[in-house]
Amino acid sequence: MEFTAKQIADLIGGRVEGNEAAAVHTFAKIEEGQEGAISFLSNPKYTHYLYETKSTIVLVNEDLELEQEVSATLIRVKNAYEAVAKLLQIYESIKPKKTGIDSLAFVSPKATIGKDVYIGAFACIGDGAVIGDGAQIYPHVVIGDGVKVGEKCLFYPNVTVYQGCRIGNNVTIHAGSVIGADGFGFAPSTEGYDKIPQIGIVIIEDNVEIGANTCIDRSTMGATVVHKGVKLDNLIQVAHNCEIGENTVMSAQVGMAGSTKIGSWCMVGGQAGFAGHIHVADKTFVGAQCGVISNTKGNEQLIGSPAMDPKVFFKASAVMKKLPDMYRELNQLKKELAELKANK
Amino acid sequence: MEFTAKQIADLIGGRVEGNEAAAVHTFAKIEEGQEGAISFLSNPKYTHYLYETKSTIVLVNEDLELEQEVSATLIRVKNAYEAVAKLLQIYESIKPKKTGIDSLAFVSPKATIGKDVYIGAFACIGDGAVIGDGAQIYPHVVIGDGVKVGEKCLFYPNVTVYQGCRIGNNVTIHAGSVIGADGFGFAPSTEGYDKIPQIGIVIIEDNVEIGANTCIDRSTMGATVVHKGVKLDNLIQVAHNCEIGENTVMSAQVGMAGSTKIGSWCMVGGQAGFAGHIHVADKTFVGAQCGVISNTKGNEQLIGSPAMDPKVFFKASAVMKKLPDMYRELNQLKKELAELKANK
Amino acid sequence: MEFTAKQIADLIGGRVEGNEAAAVHTFAKIEEGQEGAISFLSNPKYTHYLYETKSTIVLVNEDLELEQEVSATLIRVKNAYEAVAKLLQIYESIKPKKTGIDSLAFVSPKATIGKDVYIGAFACIGDGAVIGDGAQIYPHVVIGDGVKVGEKCLFYPNVTVYQGCRIGNNVTIHAGSVIGADGFGFAPSTEGYDKIPQIGIVIIEDNVEIGANTCIDRSTMGATVVHKGVKLDNLIQVAHNCEIGENTVMSAQVGMAGSTKIGSWCMVGGQAGFAGHIHVADKTFVGAQCGVISNTKGNEQLIGSPAMDPKVFFKASAVMKKLPDMYRELNQLKKELAELKANK
Repeated sequence: MEFTAKQIADLIGGRVEGNEAAAVHTFAKIEEGQEGAISFLSNPKYTHYLYETKSTIVLVNEDLELEQEVSATLIRVKNAYEAVAKLLQIYESIKPKKTGIDSLAFVSPKATIGKDVYIGAFACIGDGAVIGDGAQIYPHVVIGDGVKVGEKCLFYPNVTVYQGCRIGNNVTIHAGSVIGADGFGFAPSTEGYDKIPQIGIVIIEDNVEIGANTCIDRSTMGATVVHKGVKLDNLIQVAHNCEIGENTVMSAQVGMAGSTKIGSWCMVGGQAGFAGHIHVADKTFVGAQCGVISNTKGNEQLIGSPAMDPKVFFKASAVMKKLPDMYRELNQLKKELAELKANK
Repeated sequence: MEFTAKQIADLIGGRVEGNEAAAVHTFAKIEEGQEGAISFLSNPKYTHYLYETKSTIVLVNEDLELEQEVSATLIRVKNAYEAVAKLLQIYESIKPKKTGIDSLAFVSPKATIGKDVYIGAFACIGDGAVIGDGAQIYPHVVIGDGVKVGEKCLFYPNVTVYQGCRIGNNVTIHAGSVIGADGFGFAPSTEGYDKIPQIGIVIIEDNVEIGANTCIDRSTMGATVVHKGVKLDNLIQVAHNCEIGENTVMSAQVGMAGSTKIGSWCMVGGQAGFAGHIHVADKTFVGAQCGVISNTKGNEQLIGSPAMDPKVFFKASAVMKKLPDMYRELNQLKKELAELKANK
Repeated sequence: MEFTAKQIADLIGGRVEGNEAAAVHTFAKIEEGQEGAISFLSNPKYTHYLYETKSTIVLVNEDLELEQEVSATLIRVKNAYEAVAKLLQIYESIKPKKTGIDSLAFVSPKATIGKDVYIGAFACIGDGAVIGDGAQIYPHVVIGDGVKVGEKCLFYPNVTVYQGCRIGNNVTIHAGSVIGADGFGFAPSTEGYDKIPQIGIVIIEDNVEIGANTCIDRSTMGATVVHKGVKLDNLIQVAHNCEIGENTVMSAQVGMAGSTKIGSWCMVGGQAGFAGHIHVADKTFVGAQCGVISNTKGNEQLIGSPAMDPKVFFKASAVMKKLPDMYRELNQLKKELAELKANK
């Protein structure tokens, strides 16, 4: 499928500078430009690529001032980054979607399947499960008994949703993620540990996206809850009885221990960890590898393990390297001072 | 299914205070109480919920003194937490279990399947595999050639057990976990790395529970061993030739490098890491995000990276924040002392 | 299959000391020796086992001097460790390989399958996919539409490769790994986050090995690239638009944030993390749990979070424990000095 500069400019409210009939069929990074591709320039650091790129069209910010001639056709927009995101969304939305229930899928006769649903080969839909309209269930997804899946959900291969969990609308889950495995609950006895059955569920609200190989455990009782708009990256651990507030985003490999509640609009860096039973307030920014061990007040930034203010952390880290010298000097000072006092 | 307060009290050796005929059909957290549910009160912090809860029955400790009237029927027991664990186990044990071999499963004609086994759709049992009596193999589990699985094991969807591994009795493995992938062994050459084939296996003893998306690698030769009663959470890495002692528990995202041996009755916090070829003694308590790089003596507590005594760690961490000030003050002292000496 | 000491010595260029007809059929660690097994001795720490081992044959270094009688037949070679790696490779190569396309696999009629390919039960090969000669695709692997897989690749169960990705020759991917899930890209708006579609791919070059449950995300545009000879362990996160240079090895649970480029011949310890948009130069050695937040110069060793020189790190860590004492002493010195000055 090809689009002309004119058509694209109309779609995103831009202005063509160059050949309105210039046509593209794909996207490319500006530094990897190629004929027939559209690129974008947002970060000023990359401006020099604009003059070399082989891409046919480049999206640029309205106010960009050219310093030399450009061979590509330009489309000027208010915000090139947002415009390209919008274009990519349009591009994705017109791609043909898979439809129908594959004859190699297993769908329980006791399951309820909505309209316009795709269920791929070897997918497995359990007794009493409900799959909402427009859902896309890829091959090898396992939907447990009694699971409710909302409308327009997209589950990639090898996702497992344990029995009884509830998933909202427009939820995307990437390959290999596990929703609703047992929380890690055991009671010690003299001979070993006794399992505490985990009879709760996981609730995932609307517009959540979950990366690959992430685990969200069911609660002991009640529910582990991921509120609407949350975005979780790959390989994240969400323990039983946790709660993640609206529009919070977490990078890969973050871990939350049991019963911890994280507020809304938080941002969490990769490999950060949260102790159990704490409350992290709204709009907390947690740096990568941070260890959060107590409640936070909100609108805070944290880094380090245990977590502290980033300014303090980076200053302290810089001085860390001088610690051995400080230690030596401190001992030297002690000696000198003792001598001074003795000789007084 | 409904149970009366009288029936429950008889099951767990408790004493009813209120309506013996009060009936419940589900569990609820005390703060989320509802009619027809049983809750429990163990942590004194939550005592105020006892007077507000809508649950029909609440399990409480024998010695609890009421400060106001309670609408729920109480069951007094020695230890409310243990009693609820016991009740949950009974509740789980009476749930109907899946049985039979699904017609969509693949079971090698050279495999041996015990009695009362469930094998779900699309599960795959390899040549020479042995599945013990009462095992529950969920859909999409892959059991490699020659694997031995003991009695009453429970494997959730998308578990992979590589060829030749040996699993004991009563072992539960959650979705997506991988048992017996190759250890990470390569020999450097001038052109790159040569693979060292990993011809060992993984041995998992009785009563082990393994969380979701956890990886336990096979050994180069011999076996990677997880001893009986071990409980591993999600997303854990156990490298080749490791050994984990009886009744040791590990939280999510812990990583063990190759050939490390961990003793029995250890507790390991989330995201902790162990260097290779070390011995961690029995009853070592390792905090979250800890980095253990050398042998431990037993009955130790460790935290920080590199690991140290928690008291030292938390004191040092508190002073960390003052490091920049200390640095400035130290330099100031040096100057003052030099002046003092010069002026003497 | 049995081999005599003479046959083995011929294979690896060794010299028999003892019974040339001594025959073995398996490998064993020297400390777990058994009749009919071959062991090796490389680490001098284990030399005492040589005199006790029950193994029939032991590979030893040419220059080993015996201190007492040995019952096993010895084969002397230049480097016992390399010799055993070679032997293991031979042993692996003669094991019978699975062949043929299982009748329970799903192979799209629009896919192209090479010669001597194995495709296991319930594997799923999408439209337009190309599988090279000699590939081994285990049960439950999902190969998306348009994916290209080179020759002699080996994919274990439950691997997912998303549509459009390109895999070179001799690539091994262990169970549960996910290649080509969406990069973690969202644009904030006032109501939440808008998805930035990820239309790039993942390119994996020749001779790469990837562990279990590892995730390599597709790029926003262009490609996330894993260059030839790279070895990745389990549970690793490689974000969108990353690049990993030739022959770099990474231990388990390492995480790379988006657009970071790592050079060739690097070694990265377990649980280390890399910030986004940085360049790590060739031959950088990154310790376990390290946090790399800025570009590196090459031939560096790094440890700690934030990363620093190991010598500095270990010295500083040692002094860390004395920090509380230092703090107290510093305050004491201040007081004493002030007194001294006052009394002057």
